[in-house]
Amino acid sequence: MKLLAMEAASVSGSAAVREEDKLLALSFRNRGLTHSQTLLPMVEEVLDAAGMKITDLDGIAFTDGPGSFTGLRIGGAAVKGLFFGRKACCYPVSSLLAAACGGIAFSGIVSASMDARCGQVYNALFRGDGKTLTRLTADRALPVAELLEELRALEGTPILHLGDGGHIVFGEAVAAGQTDQILAPAGMRYPTAAGVAEAVFSGLAAADAEREGYSFPLDPEQLELRYLRKPQAEREREAREGRTPAKPE
Amino acid sequence: MKLLAMEAASVSGSAAVREEDKLLALSFRNRGLTHSQTLLPMVEEVLDAAGMKITDLDGIAFTDGPGSFTGLRIGGAAVKGLFFGRKACCYPVSSLLAAACGGIAFSGIVSASMDARCGQVYNALFRGDGKTLTRLTADRALPVAELLEELRALEGTPILHLGDGGHIVFGEAVAAGQTDQILAPAGMRYPTAAGVAEAVFSGLAAADAEREGYSFPLDPEQLELRYLRKPQAEREREAREGRTPAKPE
Repeated sequence: MKLLAMEAASVSGSAAVREEDKLLALSFRNRGLTHSQTLLPMVEEVLDAAGMKITDLDGIAFTDGPGSFTGLRIGGAAVKGLFFGRKACCYPVSSLLAAACGGIAFSGIVSASMDARCGQVYNALFRGDGKTLTRLTADRALPVAELLEELRALEGTPILHLGDGGHIVFGEAVAAGQTDQILAPAGMRYPTAAGVAEAVFSGLAAADAEREGYSFPLDPEQLELRYLRKPQAEREREAREGRTPAKPE
Repeated sequence: MKLLAMEAASVSGSAAVREEDKLLALSFRNRGLTHSQTLLPMVEEVLDAAGMKITDLDGIAFTDGPGSFTGLRIGGAAVKGLFFGRKACCYPVSSLLAAACGGIAFSGIVSASMDARCGQVYNALFRGDGKTLTRLTADRALPVAELLEELRALEGTPILHLGDGGHIVFGEAVAAGQTDQILAPAGMRYPTAAGVAEAVFSGLAAADAEREGYSFPLDPEQLELRYLRKPQAEREREAREGRTPAKPE
Protein backbone atom coordinates (compact mmCIF):
# COMPACT_ATOMS: atom_id res chain seq x y z
CA MET A 1 0.00 0.00 0.00
CA LYS A 2 1.24 3.47 -0.96
CA LEU A 3 0.13 5.84 1.77
CA LEU A 4 0.28 9.62 2.07
CA ALA A 5 0.17 10.70 5.72
CA MET A 6 -0.48 14.22 6.98
CA GLU A 7 -0.36 15.73 10.48
CA ALA A 8 -1.83 19.20 11.09
CA ALA A 9 -3.50 18.85 14.50
CA SER A 10 -0.50 19.88 16.58
CA VAL A 11 1.68 22.99 16.68
CA SER A 12 4.00 21.28 14.19
CA GLY A 13 2.92 19.98 10.81
CA SER A 14 4.24 17.20 8.63
CA ALA A 15 3.64 15.04 5.60
CA ALA A 16 5.08 11.64 4.70
CA VAL A 17 4.88 8.94 2.07
CA ARG A 18 5.25 5.34 3.17
CA GLU A 19 5.04 2.19 1.09
CA GLU A 20 4.66 -0.96 3.18
CA ASP A 21 7.66 -1.15 5.54
CA LYS A 22 9.52 1.74 3.90
CA LEU A 23 9.23 5.37 4.88
CA LEU A 24 10.05 7.07 1.58
CA ALA A 25 9.89 10.73 2.53
CA LEU A 26 9.03 12.95 5.47
CA SER A 27 8.82 16.72 5.78
CA PHE A 28 8.30 18.23 9.23
CA ARG A 29 7.91 21.95 10.02
CA ASN A 30 7.65 23.49 13.46
CA ARG A 31 8.12 27.22 13.18
CA GLY A 32 4.69 28.34 14.32
CA LEU A 33 3.52 29.16 10.78
CA THR A 34 -0.06 28.32 9.95
CA HIS A 35 -0.63 24.88 8.48
CA SER A 36 -2.55 26.57 5.66
CA GLN A 37 0.80 27.85 4.40
CA THR A 38 2.92 24.78 5.03
CA LEU A 39 0.78 21.63 4.66
CA LEU A 40 0.17 21.47 0.91
CA PRO A 41 3.76 22.47 -0.01
CA MET A 42 4.96 19.60 2.24
CA VAL A 43 2.55 17.19 0.53
CA GLU A 44 4.02 18.29 -2.79
CA GLU A 45 7.59 17.87 -1.47
CA VAL A 46 7.09 14.33 -0.18
CA LEU A 47 5.16 13.12 -3.24
CA ASP A 48 7.88 14.58 -5.45
CA ALA A 49 10.62 13.00 -3.29
CA ALA A 50 8.82 9.64 -3.46
CA GLY A 51 8.41 9.96 -7.23
CA MET A 52 4.62 9.65 -6.95
CA LYS A 53 1.53 11.48 -8.06
CA ILE A 54 -1.71 11.75 -6.06
CA THR A 55 -3.23 9.15 -8.38
CA ASP A 56 -0.51 6.61 -7.46
CA LEU A 57 -1.65 6.55 -3.83
CA ASP A 58 -3.79 3.79 -2.35
CA GLY A 59 -4.72 5.78 0.70
CA ILE A 60 -4.38 8.90 2.74
CA ALA A 61 -4.02 9.02 6.51
CA PHE A 62 -4.39 12.13 8.61
CA THR A 63 -4.90 13.25 12.18
CA ASP A 64 -8.60 13.99 12.67
CA GLY A 65 -8.22 15.15 16.28
CA PRO A 66 -7.84 16.11 18.98
CA GLY A 67 -5.88 19.32 18.52
CA SER A 68 -6.00 22.83 17.16
CA PHE A 69 -9.45 23.49 15.69
CA THR A 70 -7.95 25.42 12.80
CA GLY A 71 -5.30 22.78 12.20
CA LEU A 72 -7.90 20.00 12.14
CA ARG A 73 -9.99 21.90 9.62
CA ILE A 74 -6.97 22.58 7.43
CA GLY A 75 -6.05 18.89 7.48
CA GLY A 76 -9.62 17.76 6.83
CA ALA A 77 -10.05 20.28 4.01
CA ALA A 78 -6.78 19.12 2.44
CA VAL A 79 -7.95 15.49 2.49
CA LYS A 80 -11.31 16.37 0.97
CA GLY A 81 -9.72 18.70 -1.56
CA LEU A 82 -7.11 16.21 -2.69
CA PHE A 83 -9.27 13.08 -2.61
CA PHE A 84 -12.93 14.00 -3.01
CA GLY A 85 -14.44 11.71 -5.63
CA ARG A 86 -11.38 9.47 -5.81
CA LYS A 87 -11.31 5.83 -4.78
CA ALA A 88 -8.49 6.28 -2.26
CA CYS A 89 -9.12 5.01 1.23
CA CYS A 90 -9.07 7.58 3.99
CA TYR A 91 -7.54 6.59 7.35
CA PRO A 92 -8.33 8.94 10.23
CA VAL A 93 -5.78 8.64 13.05
CA SER A 94 -5.92 10.10 16.55
CA SER A 95 -3.21 12.74 16.88
CA LEU A 96 -2.46 11.34 20.35
CA LEU A 97 -2.01 7.84 18.90
CA ALA A 98 0.30 9.31 16.23
CA ALA A 99 2.41 10.88 18.98
CA ALA A 100 2.36 7.66 21.03
CA CYS A 101 3.69 5.71 18.05
CA GLY A 102 7.03 7.45 18.64
CA GLY A 103 7.22 5.32 21.80
CA ILE A 104 6.07 2.05 20.27
CA ALA A 105 9.24 0.27 21.51
CA PHE A 106 8.86 1.59 25.07
CA SER A 107 8.16 -0.70 28.02
CA GLY A 108 5.88 1.07 30.48
CA ILE A 109 3.22 3.75 30.23
CA VAL A 110 3.21 6.01 27.19
CA SER A 111 1.42 9.28 27.93
CA ALA A 112 0.63 11.39 24.85
CA SER A 113 -0.41 14.97 25.56
CA MET A 114 -1.21 18.13 23.65
CA ASP A 115 -1.75 21.57 25.13
CA ALA A 116 -5.52 22.23 25.22
CA ARG A 117 -5.04 25.63 26.97
CA CYS A 118 -6.91 26.77 30.11
CA GLY A 119 -4.86 24.36 32.28
CA GLN A 120 -6.07 21.36 30.31
CA VAL A 121 -4.37 18.86 28.05
CA TYR A 122 -5.66 16.47 25.46
CA ASN A 123 -4.28 13.16 26.63
CA ALA A 124 -4.36 9.42 26.10
CA LEU A 125 -2.48 6.73 28.01
CA PHE A 126 -1.12 3.53 26.50
CA ARG A 127 0.71 0.54 27.93
CA GLY A 128 3.81 -0.44 25.97
CA ASP A 129 5.33 -3.91 26.19
CA GLY A 130 8.35 -2.99 24.04
CA LYS A 131 6.67 -4.28 20.88
CA THR A 132 3.27 -2.65 20.65
CA LEU A 133 0.92 -0.34 22.49
CA THR A 134 -2.38 -1.09 24.21
CA ARG A 135 -4.75 1.79 24.82
CA LEU A 136 -5.58 2.40 28.48
CA THR A 137 -7.84 5.43 27.98
CA ALA A 138 -9.81 7.11 25.23
CA ASP A 139 -8.61 10.49 23.96
CA ARG A 140 -9.93 13.06 26.42
CA ALA A 141 -9.48 16.66 27.53
CA LEU A 142 -8.71 16.93 31.22
CA PRO A 143 -7.02 19.24 33.74
CA VAL A 144 -3.30 18.54 34.17
CA ALA A 145 -3.85 18.05 37.92
CA GLU A 146 -6.34 15.26 37.23
CA LEU A 147 -3.90 13.55 34.85
CA LEU A 148 -1.17 13.76 37.50
CA GLU A 149 -3.50 11.93 39.90
CA GLU A 150 -3.93 9.14 37.37
CA LEU A 151 -0.18 8.95 36.81
CA ARG A 152 0.47 8.86 40.55
CA ALA A 153 -1.63 5.70 40.74
CA LEU A 154 0.76 4.15 38.20
CA GLU A 155 3.89 5.03 40.17
CA GLY A 156 6.61 2.40 39.99
CA THR A 157 6.07 1.95 36.24
CA PRO A 158 8.25 4.04 33.90
CA ILE A 159 6.15 6.74 32.18
CA LEU A 160 7.25 8.23 28.84
CA HIS A 161 5.80 11.64 27.93
CA LEU A 162 5.22 12.30 24.26
CA GLY A 163 3.22 14.86 22.27
CA ASP A 164 3.71 18.59 21.87
CA GLY A 165 2.26 19.05 25.36
CA GLY A 166 4.41 16.29 26.90
CA HIS A 167 6.76 18.84 28.46
CA ILE A 168 3.83 20.53 30.27
CA VAL A 169 2.72 17.33 32.03
CA PHE A 170 6.31 16.25 32.64
CA GLY A 171 7.17 19.64 34.17
CA GLU A 172 4.15 19.54 36.50
CA ALA A 173 4.88 15.94 37.46
CA VAL A 174 8.48 16.77 38.36
CA ALA A 175 7.30 19.82 40.32
CA ALA A 176 4.88 17.53 42.19
CA GLY A 177 7.74 15.14 43.04
CA GLN A 178 6.44 12.29 40.87
CA THR A 179 9.33 10.08 39.84
CA ASP A 180 9.78 7.41 37.15
CA GLN A 181 8.80 9.90 34.47
CA ILE A 182 10.72 10.46 31.25
CA LEU A 183 10.35 13.30 28.76
CA ALA A 184 11.03 12.11 25.22
CA PRO A 185 13.81 14.11 23.53
CA ALA A 186 12.82 17.02 21.29
CA GLY A 187 13.33 15.16 18.03
CA MET A 188 10.90 12.34 18.86
CA ARG A 189 8.32 14.13 21.00
CA TYR A 190 6.00 15.59 18.36
CA PRO A 191 3.29 13.69 16.53
CA THR A 192 4.56 13.37 12.96
CA ALA A 193 3.21 12.04 9.71
CA ALA A 194 5.64 9.12 10.19
CA GLY A 195 3.74 8.30 13.40
CA VAL A 196 0.43 8.65 11.54
CA ALA A 197 1.64 6.14 8.94
CA GLU A 198 2.93 3.82 11.67
CA ALA A 199 -0.50 3.93 13.37
CA VAL A 200 -2.07 2.71 10.12
CA PHE A 201 0.49 0.05 9.17
CA SER A 202 0.74 -1.33 12.74
CA GLY A 203 -3.04 -1.79 12.96
CA LEU A 204 -3.27 0.49 16.01
CA ALA A 205 -5.49 3.01 14.18
CA ALA A 206 -7.81 0.18 13.08
CA ALA A 207 -7.99 -1.00 16.72
CA ASP A 208 -9.05 2.54 17.72
CA ALA A 209 -11.77 2.51 15.07
CA GLU A 210 -13.05 -0.86 16.23
CA ARG A 211 -13.08 0.32 19.85
CA GLU A 212 -14.93 3.53 18.95
CA GLY A 213 -17.24 1.87 16.45
CA TYR A 214 -16.57 3.86 13.28
CA SER A 215 -15.83 2.37 9.89
CA PHE A 216 -12.20 2.23 8.84
CA PRO A 217 -11.06 3.13 6.28
CA LEU A 218 -13.60 5.73 5.19
CA ASP A 219 -14.49 7.39 1.93
CA PRO A 220 -13.10 10.94 2.03
CA GLU A 221 -16.72 12.17 1.82
CA GLN A 222 -17.55 10.49 5.14
CA LEU A 223 -14.81 12.00 7.23
CA GLU A 224 -15.62 13.95 10.38
CA LEU A 225 -13.26 15.71 12.75
CA ARG A 226 -13.07 14.84 16.44
CA TYR A 227 -12.81 18.06 18.40
CA LEU A 228 -13.36 16.59 21.92
CA ARG A 229 -14.28 20.07 23.14
CA LYS A 230 -16.56 22.75 21.74
CA PRO A 231 -14.87 25.77 20.14
CA GLN A 232 -14.05 28.62 22.53
CA ALA A 233 -16.62 30.92 20.84
CA GLU A 234 -19.40 28.37 21.49
CA ARG A 235 -18.28 27.83 25.08
CA GLU A 236 -18.31 31.59 25.65
CA ARG A 237 -21.76 32.02 24.09
CA GLU A 238 -23.15 29.23 26.25
CA ALA A 239 -21.62 30.91 29.30
CA ARG A 240 -23.19 34.26 28.35
CA GLU A 241 -26.51 32.50 27.97
CA GLY A 242 -26.01 30.91 31.38
CA ARG A 243 -25.99 27.37 30.08
CA THR A 244 -22.51 26.11 31.06
CA PRO A 245 -19.40 27.68 32.54
CA ALA A 246 -17.01 29.27 29.98
CA LYS A 247 -14.06 27.50 31.54
CA PRO A 248 -13.73 23.84 30.67
CA GLU A 249 -15.20 21.68 33.37
CA MET B 1 22.41 27.24 19.70
CA LYS B 2 21.06 27.12 16.14
CA LEU B 3 22.21 23.88 14.59
CA LEU B 4 21.97 22.51 11.06
CA ALA B 5 22.20 18.71 11.05
CA MET B 6 22.79 16.51 8.01
CA GLU B 7 22.74 12.73 7.53
CA ALA B 8 24.14 11.22 4.35
CA ALA B 9 25.96 8.10 5.58
CA SER B 10 23.01 5.72 5.29
CA VAL B 11 20.74 4.68 2.41
CA SER B 12 18.39 7.48 3.43
CA GLY B 13 19.37 11.12 3.69
CA SER B 14 18.06 13.96 5.79
CA ALA B 15 18.60 17.50 6.98
CA ALA B 16 17.22 19.28 10.04
CA VAL B 17 17.39 22.56 11.88
CA ARG B 18 17.18 22.52 15.66
CA GLU B 19 17.38 25.43 18.09
CA GLU B 20 17.94 24.31 21.68
CA ASP B 21 15.04 22.02 22.64
CA LYS B 22 13.02 22.72 19.49
CA LEU B 23 13.25 20.76 16.26
CA LEU B 24 12.25 23.43 13.73
CA ALA B 25 12.35 21.48 10.49
CA LEU B 26 13.26 18.05 9.16
CA SER B 27 13.38 16.69 5.63
CA PHE B 28 13.99 12.97 5.14
CA ARG B 29 14.29 11.17 1.78
CA ASN B 30 14.64 7.44 1.26
CA ARG B 31 14.07 6.63 -2.37
CA GLY B 32 17.52 5.35 -3.26
CA LEU B 33 18.52 8.52 -5.08
CA THR B 34 22.09 9.67 -4.66
CA HIS B 35 22.70 12.06 -1.79
CA SER B 36 24.47 14.34 -4.27
CA GLN B 37 21.04 15.11 -5.73
CA THR B 38 19.02 15.29 -2.53
CA LEU B 39 21.23 16.60 0.30
CA LEU B 40 21.71 20.26 -0.63
CA PRO B 41 18.06 20.76 -1.70
CA MET B 42 17.02 19.37 1.71
CA VAL B 43 19.43 21.77 3.46
CA GLU B 44 17.82 24.61 1.53
CA GLU B 45 14.31 23.36 2.42
CA VAL B 46 14.95 23.13 6.17
CA LEU B 47 16.79 26.46 6.39
CA ASP B 48 13.96 28.10 4.48
CA ALA B 49 11.34 26.41 6.70
CA ALA B 50 13.22 27.56 9.81
CA GLY B 51 13.48 31.09 8.43
CA MET B 52 17.28 31.02 8.64
CA LYS B 53 20.29 31.65 6.46
CA ILE B 54 23.58 29.76 6.65
CA THR B 55 25.08 32.78 8.43
CA ASP B 56 22.47 32.52 11.22
CA LEU B 57 23.75 29.09 12.26
CA ASP B 58 26.01 28.52 15.24
CA GLY B 59 27.01 25.06 14.18
CA ILE B 60 26.68 22.20 11.75
CA ALA B 61 26.45 18.55 12.73
CA PHE B 62 26.82 15.66 10.31
CA THR B 63 27.43 11.94 10.23
CA ASP B 64 31.13 11.37 9.53
CA GLY B 65 30.85 7.58 9.46
CA PRO B 66 30.54 4.69 9.31
CA GLY B 67 28.45 4.18 6.18
CA SER B 68 28.43 4.48 2.44
CA PHE B 69 31.82 5.79 1.24
CA THR B 70 30.17 7.98 -1.37
CA GLY B 71 27.56 9.25 1.10
CA LEU B 72 30.23 10.15 3.64
CA ARG B 73 32.19 12.09 1.03
CA ILE B 74 29.06 13.92 -0.13
CA GLY B 75 28.24 14.89 3.47
CA GLY B 76 31.82 15.92 4.23
CA ALA B 77 32.08 17.92 1.01
CA ALA B 78 28.79 19.67 1.79
CA VAL B 79 30.04 20.69 5.26
CA LYS B 80 33.33 21.99 3.85
CA GLY B 81 31.59 23.72 0.95
CA LEU B 82 29.00 25.43 3.12
CA PHE B 83 31.22 26.30 6.06
CA PHE B 84 34.85 26.53 4.92
CA GLY B 85 36.34 29.74 6.31
CA ARG B 86 33.33 30.44 8.55
CA LYS B 87 33.40 30.49 12.30
CA ALA B 88 30.64 27.88 12.70
CA CYS B 89 31.46 24.89 14.89
CA CYS B 90 31.45 21.52 13.21
CA TYR B 91 30.07 18.54 15.17
CA PRO B 92 30.90 15.13 13.69
CA VAL B 93 28.47 12.45 14.87
CA SER B 94 28.69 8.68 14.45
CA SER B 95 25.92 7.54 12.11
CA LEU B 96 25.34 4.58 14.48
CA LEU B 97 24.94 6.94 17.43
CA ALA B 98 22.49 9.04 15.36
CA ALA B 99 20.44 5.89 14.71
CA ALA B 100 20.67 4.83 18.37
CA CYS B 101 19.28 8.22 19.46
CA GLY B 102 15.92 7.06 18.07
CA GLY B 103 15.92 4.63 21.01
CA ILE B 104 17.09 7.04 23.68
CA ALA B 105 14.03 6.28 25.86
CA PHE B 106 14.50 2.50 25.58
CA SER B 107 15.38 0.35 28.59
CA GLY B 108 17.68 -2.44 27.50
CA ILE B 109 20.26 -2.89 24.76
CA VAL B 110 20.09 -0.62 21.73
CA SER B 111 21.81 -2.22 18.74
CA ALA B 112 22.44 0.18 15.82
CA SER B 113 23.40 -1.51 12.55
CA MET B 114 24.04 -0.56 8.94
CA ASP B 115 24.52 -2.93 6.04
CA ALA B 116 28.27 -3.09 5.30
CA ARG B 117 27.78 -5.74 2.55
CA CYS B 118 29.75 -9.01 2.26
CA GLY B 119 27.86 -10.50 5.28
CA GLN B 120 29.04 -7.71 7.55
CA VAL B 121 27.34 -4.89 9.37
CA TYR B 122 28.59 -1.68 10.88
CA ASN B 123 27.36 -1.90 14.44
CA ALA B 124 27.51 -0.34 17.86
CA LEU B 125 25.80 -1.45 21.06
CA PHE B 126 24.47 0.87 23.74
CA ARG B 127 22.78 0.30 27.08
CA GLY B 128 19.64 2.37 27.59
CA ASP B 129 18.22 3.09 31.05
CA GLY B 130 15.11 4.83 29.66
CA LYS B 131 16.68 8.26 29.94
CA THR B 132 20.03 8.13 28.19
CA LEU B 133 22.38 5.76 26.40
CA THR B 134 25.76 4.42 27.48
CA ARG B 135 28.08 3.09 24.81
CA LEU B 136 29.03 -0.58 25.23
CA THR B 137 31.18 -0.91 22.08
CA ALA B 138 33.00 1.31 19.63
CA ASP B 139 31.65 1.54 16.08
CA ARG B 140 32.97 -1.50 14.25
CA ALA B 141 32.48 -3.62 11.14
CA LEU B 142 31.85 -7.27 11.95
CA PRO B 143 30.19 -10.38 10.52
CA VAL B 144 26.51 -10.69 11.45
CA ALA B 145 27.23 -14.14 12.96
CA GLU B 146 29.75 -12.61 15.35
CA LEU B 147 27.28 -9.90 16.40
CA LEU B 148 24.65 -12.59 17.06
CA GLU B 149 27.12 -14.30 19.40
CA GLU B 150 27.52 -11.07 21.34
CA LEU B 151 23.76 -10.57 21.52
CA ARG B 152 23.26 -14.15 22.66
CA ALA B 153 25.44 -13.37 25.68
CA LEU B 154 23.01 -10.56 26.54
CA GLU B 155 19.93 -12.80 26.37
CA GLY B 156 17.29 -11.94 28.95
CA THR B 157 17.71 -8.20 28.28
CA PRO B 158 15.37 -6.61 25.71
CA ILE B 159 17.31 -5.69 22.55
CA LEU B 160 16.05 -2.94 20.22
CA HIS B 161 17.37 -3.00 16.65
CA LEU B 162 17.79 0.34 14.95
CA GLY B 163 19.63 1.58 11.85
CA ASP B 164 19.03 0.90 8.20
CA GLY B 165 20.60 -2.55 8.69
CA GLY B 166 18.61 -3.32 11.84
CA HIS B 167 16.23 -5.59 9.92
CA ILE B 168 19.18 -7.72 8.72
CA VAL B 169 20.45 -8.46 12.23
CA PHE B 170 16.91 -8.85 13.58
CA GLY B 171 16.03 -11.29 10.80
CA GLU B 172 19.12 -13.41 11.43
CA ALA B 173 18.53 -13.33 15.19
CA VAL B 174 14.96 -14.54 14.79
CA ALA B 175 16.12 -17.25 12.38
CA ALA B 176 18.67 -18.33 15.01
CA GLY B 177 15.93 -18.53 17.65
CA GLN B 178 17.20 -15.62 19.72
CA THR B 179 14.35 -14.07 21.64
CA ASP B 180 13.85 -10.74 23.45
CA GLN B 181 14.67 -8.86 20.26
CA ILE B 182 12.61 -5.99 18.90
CA LEU B 183 12.81 -4.40 15.47
CA ALA B 184 12.02 -0.69 15.62
CA PRO B 185 9.14 0.29 13.33
CA ALA B 186 9.96 1.64 9.88
CA GLY B 187 9.39 5.28 10.77
CA MET B 188 11.92 5.34 13.61
CA ARG B 189 14.53 2.85 12.40
CA TYR B 190 16.69 5.03 10.16
CA PRO B 191 19.38 7.39 11.36
CA THR B 192 18.01 10.88 10.70
CA ALA B 193 19.27 14.42 11.01
CA ALA B 194 16.94 14.72 14.04
CA GLY B 195 18.98 11.93 15.65
CA VAL B 196 22.21 13.70 14.67
CA ALA B 197 20.97 16.88 16.38
CA GLU B 198 19.84 14.87 19.44
CA ALA B 199 23.33 13.33 19.67
CA VAL B 200 24.82 16.83 19.87
CA PHE B 201 22.29 18.42 22.25
CA SER B 202 22.22 15.38 24.59
CA GLY B 203 26.02 15.41 24.95
CA LEU B 204 26.31 11.84 23.62
CA ALA B 205 28.39 12.94 20.61
CA ALA B 206 30.73 14.87 22.93
CA ALA B 207 31.08 11.73 25.06
CA ASP B 208 32.07 9.79 21.94
CA ALA B 209 34.70 12.42 21.11
CA GLU B 210 36.13 12.30 24.61
CA ARG B 211 36.25 8.49 24.48
CA GLU B 212 37.98 8.50 21.10
CA GLY B 213 40.25 11.45 21.90
CA TYR B 214 39.37 13.88 19.12
CA SER B 215 38.56 17.54 19.62
CA PHE B 216 34.90 18.49 19.60
CA PRO B 217 33.63 20.65 18.04
CA LEU B 218 36.08 21.00 15.15
CA ASP B 219 36.78 23.70 12.62
CA PRO B 220 35.29 22.56 9.30
CA GLU B 221 38.87 22.51 7.93
CA GLN B 222 39.90 19.84 10.44
CA LEU B 223 37.20 17.31 9.67
CA GLU B 224 38.04 13.78 8.67
CA LEU B 225 35.73 10.94 7.73
CA ARG B 226 35.68 7.63 9.60
CA TYR B 227 35.45 4.85 7.08
CA LEU B 228 36.16 1.90 9.47
CA ARG B 229 37.02 -0.24 6.45
CA LYS B 230 39.18 0.39 3.43
CA PRO B 231 37.36 1.01 0.12
CA GLN B 232 36.58 -2.11 -1.89
CA ALA B 233 39.03 -1.08 -4.65
CA GLU B 234 41.89 -0.90 -2.14
CA ARG B 235 40.92 -4.21 -0.54
CA GLU B 236 40.88 -5.85 -3.97
CA ARG B 237 44.25 -4.37 -4.94
CA GLU B 238 45.78 -5.60 -1.70
CA ALA B 239 44.33 -9.04 -2.36
CA ARG B 240 45.80 -9.07 -5.89
CA GLU B 241 49.14 -8.10 -4.41
CA GLY B 242 48.79 -10.94 -1.91
CA ARG B 243 48.75 -8.71 1.13
CA THR B 244 45.32 -9.37 2.71
CA PRO B 245 42.24 -11.31 1.74
CA ALA B 246 39.76 -9.40 -0.47
CA LYS B 247 36.86 -10.44 1.75
CA PRO B 248 36.64 -8.58 5.02
CA GLU B 249 38.27 -10.53 7.81
